[in-house]
Amino acid sequence: MRDEATAFVPGHITGFFSTHPHEDPTKAGSRGAGLTLTDGVTVTVEPAPESTVVLDGDRLEIDPVTTVLETLDVTARVEAESALPLGSGFGVSGAMTLGTALAANAVFERTLSTNELVTIAHGAEVQAGTGLGDVVAQAHGGIPIRLEPGGPHENVLDAIPARARVEYVSFGELSTADVLSGETDQLTVAGREALSRVVEEPTLPSFIYASRLFARETGLLTDQVREGIEAVAGVGGQASMAMLGETVFAFGTGLSDAGYDPSVCSTHPAGAVLQ
Amino acid sequence: MRDEATAFVPGHITGFFSTHPHEDPTKAGSRGAGLTLTDGVTVTVEPAPESTVVLDGDRLEIDPVTTVLETLDVTARVEAESALPLGSGFGVSGAMTLGTALAANAVFERTLSTNELVTIAHGAEVQAGTGLGDVVAQAHGGIPIRLEPGGPHENVLDAIPARARVEYVSFGELSTADVLSGETDQLTVAGREALSRVVEEPTLPSFIYASRLFARETGLLTDQVREGIEAVAGVGGQASMAMLGETVFAFGTGLSDAGYDPSVCSTHPAGAVLQ
Repeated sequence: MRDEATAFVPGHITGFFSTHPHEDPTKAGSRGAGLTLTDGVTVTVEPAPESTVVLDGDRLEIDPVTTVLETLDVTARVEAESALPLGSGFGVSGAMTLGTALAANAVFERTLSTNELVTIAHGAEVQAGTGLGDVVAQAHGGIPIRLEPGGPHENVLDAIPARARVEYVSFGELSTADVLSGETDQLTVAGREALSRVVEEPTLPSFIYASRLFARETGLLTDQVREGIEAVAGVGGQASMAMLGETVFAFGTGLSDAGYDPSVCSTHPAGAVLQ
Repeated sequence: MRDEATAFVPGHITGFFSTHPHEDPTKAGSRGAGLTLTDGVTVTVEPAPESTVVLDGDRLEIDPVTTVLETLDVTARVEAESALPLGSGFGVSGAMTLGTALAANAVFERTLSTNELVTIAHGAEVQAGTGLGDVVAQAHGGIPIRLEPGGPHENVLDAIPARARVEYVSFGELSTADVLSGETDQLTVAGREALSRVVEEPTLPSFIYASRLFARETGLLTDQVREGIEAVAGVGGQASMAMLGETVFAFGTGLSDAGYDPSVCSTHPAGAVLQ
């Protein structure tokens, strides 16, 4: 057994999605597309007599992290540092869950493969209702297109072959669990339309256009987010809303040009990695 | 149309493989496992009246690169800089082919997806007989396990969730095309055994052990490579042979400890990326 292991998991902004429930959480998930980010979460796991989870110095409960530790049959201290806020559409819970799986496998020498670890993390997120597609996107890196839902043994992924500077501003939290437990019919229709647009033309302009239409048609846009997107459009930029958070993201210098003081990062070329 | 675009493609050392011919080159390929490397190839594509290929300042013909340009219906100057020697088991031809596909798609705004570009590059390599699994591994990054052969619409990939410092020494070239066009029955048997070992235990020690057995059982070991592997074993290290080149690779400081003056790099966390 090693003393500790650390994994870095990129953040993930979902531009649009449709939900695909299944009684087996490793087969459930979402279709959609998003951006993985150089801003992400660093997760360190070390063996401990009982399991605890700490995020940026605060102890908290994150159900899928607990599930991963239980599935791997270990007790550990999980310490995460995040460049991104929790609950704001950046996949922080997915990052903590996947990072815990990768680091715990290394520390406790569980000899599982990458696909097995991603499956465990994805299933734990789906079961907890905290995410449907973040984990598989964060394992992939880049700008993943989720063509078919589920964990790595089930899903089909493609990607937009591009990189981008990304700016974002977050106004607060939205509960993924609340939205996903509500009425999702309109969301499914809008998500399918957006996906078929991006499959037809897998480029950044097509992705952000499809994402913006999705945000409007599903009624998920909040006033502050709408204002942000319009301000970016007003200076000739391209922005949309992070699903699901009260967060605007833009390519290039869209938000700076519109007078905001955004956080700045880039799309992340790699998926989650051990450090 | 943009002026030019540049892609970086990691090198790829195959540890073991089995060949899987198919009349459709996007379905043909190999099973096996290998290491993608931070040492790789940078490929810049710019539009030109006729197509030329330059590697480290020398003009040359690389059939799969030409095929990719023709498939994308473009003429371009392709300029590559490689940290790795050609023909020595590092997937340089695969890297040039995949890098050309990614960069040409960006320059000429062909709006193809990542999977489509990888399929084109993989098919071109298979058709040319210069490689069977490098392109899909180089698109994936990390330490890919190729469970099922073919391009991204056909294959099944997993990975060893680890990183490593890699040392290598190259004594010269072996022709991939010559080995692949010869008798491959024994190779297929040894490749399957190696794969099942690594699937059972997807770790670095299991990978290098399986690779070494494969090199011995297939009779591909040359005297210089055997000597290098034994020298590394003599100082308690782990080494094997890059398939297909007269090249020894080792984890950690194996070759340095054994008195060689190796090149040093690491496994690459990401697949091929546009810069």
